[in-house]
Amino acid sequence: MTTKDLLYKKFVLFGDSITQRTFDQYILGGDPSRLDYSLGAELTSIYNRKLQVLNRGFSGYNTEHARHILPELLRLEHDESNSKIELMWIFFGANDAVQKGLQKVELERYEQNLEFLTQLALDRGIKVILITPGVVDDSALSQRDPEWKDGHIRNTTRNKMYAAAVKRVGEHFNVPVLDLLSALETHGDYEQLLVDGLHFLGKAYQILYRELLNLIESEYPELHPDQLPMKLPYWRDIDPSDIKASLNG
Amino acid sequence: MTTKDLLYKKFVLFGDSITQRTFDQYILGGDPSRLDYSLGAELTSIYNRKLQVLNRGFSGYNTEHARHILPELLRLEHDESNSKIELMWIFFGANDAVQKGLQKVELERYEQNLEFLTQLALDRGIKVILITPGVVDDSALSQRDPEWKDGHIRNTTRNKMYAAAVKRVGEHFNVPVLDLLSALETHGDYEQLLVDGLHFLGKAYQILYRELLNLIESEYPELHPDQLPMKLPYWRDIDPSDIKASLNG
Repeated sequence: MTTKDLLYKKFVLFGDSITQRTFDQYILGGDPSRLDYSLGAELTSIYNRKLQVLNRGFSGYNTEHARHILPELLRLEHDESNSKIELMWIFFGANDAVQKGLQKVELERYEQNLEFLTQLALDRGIKVILITPGVVDDSALSQRDPEWKDGHIRNTTRNKMYAAAVKRVGEHFNVPVLDLLSALETHGDYEQLLVDGLHFLGKAYQILYRELLNLIESEYPELHPDQLPMKLPYWRDIDPSDIKASLNG
Repeated sequence: MTTKDLLYKKFVLFGDSITQRTFDQYILGGDPSRLDYSLGAELTSIYNRKLQVLNRGFSGYNTEHARHILPELLRLEHDESNSKIELMWIFFGANDAVQKGLQKVELERYEQNLEFLTQLALDRGIKVILITPGVVDDSALSQRDPEWKDGHIRNTTRNKMYAAAVKRVGEHFNVPVLDLLSALETHGDYEQLLVDGLHFLGKAYQILYRELLNLIESEYPELHPDQLPMKLPYWRDIDPSDIKASLNG
């Protein structure tokens, strides 16, 4: 038999630690008695029986690493897979924008890297969402980050330069950009948004969720969860005398 | 280039609504200001960069439906996919055990169906975990379920008969059984476990999580998250002068 529609297309979250942590509920210092919001869970939940959400976040990575990873990721999950990537976010910059150190990527190179990554996805007909880096609380980071005194400085001013590059790439390819930095800045209170001056608390992920759904609704309305049919029928609609025919729709 | 290990094997959660809801954080009546525990998020999080968790829960479905779905699911996600299923839970019974109505599956047939499903997975070398149905609060259900008065009765006593069948199937194939019913019964307070007399609150999912990890540790220790290597290296271990070689390990 062929059960209609049981092959799920994919929504790939491609990025650094802020992406990698999207399924964590214990981001408040790991205290299991205090649950925080998981963006990955919410996306998986609203796309349940519609799209398969894949977390491909790699903590500490930047676009220089991403250039090497994405071709292989696309080969495995799209070219050589029976289940195609429908939608992908590309969300780097938190590490690229550091002023010094192993993770730093020069602004011009960051922009070239994003162009390279976007082109790879577009070549395969994948719908892309570019996300700007978020905000940084440099007063918190300067106290916590042991490398800060060596000039490994991160701050919102630097992130804004990188966010502008994301917007230029978006315009160049006519690909939608989620301006997360501006959305977080509007909220204002960084202590409610950031766990350590850099990584997101649930509140920041909730803002990202809201902006993401708005963007999908306006730019890729056919991929909004309300527009995608649920795989396999509602159970009351299944004819028990011919389950096979019911499931095949 | 070939970025080592970027192909994720799968952990498939196959079941009914209790599986389908594993990524929901708003199970407390849908109030977004009150977050509850998501088992799916926790599994995705602990298997991050190790195994890909796939939710294949279908609300309202029973083993009679599952017989038709699993062959296609295995064909798509295992036989014809480059990414194989490594681990799968089979978790039905909440609907099968109803005393009357569309969802009911006779006990003997339920056992045969579970045998059929288990055999399909074992034939492909997939590691299986069978989960017994949970507990039911029939006093809550009798007040809420409009079909209760028509004899669509669910209760823990019936679920125990079905749980015993799950254990027989486990013994028959020498496949581990997670006796969720007993674990939940030990907890005792059904109001803390069930949102509507049938579906799980976070507390019940947390018990399932704890039992699941214990079972994986004892029965499939090589698949415990602590034993699986994380895909791609720690970012500080990447040589910036030869990223390609670093990523390929």
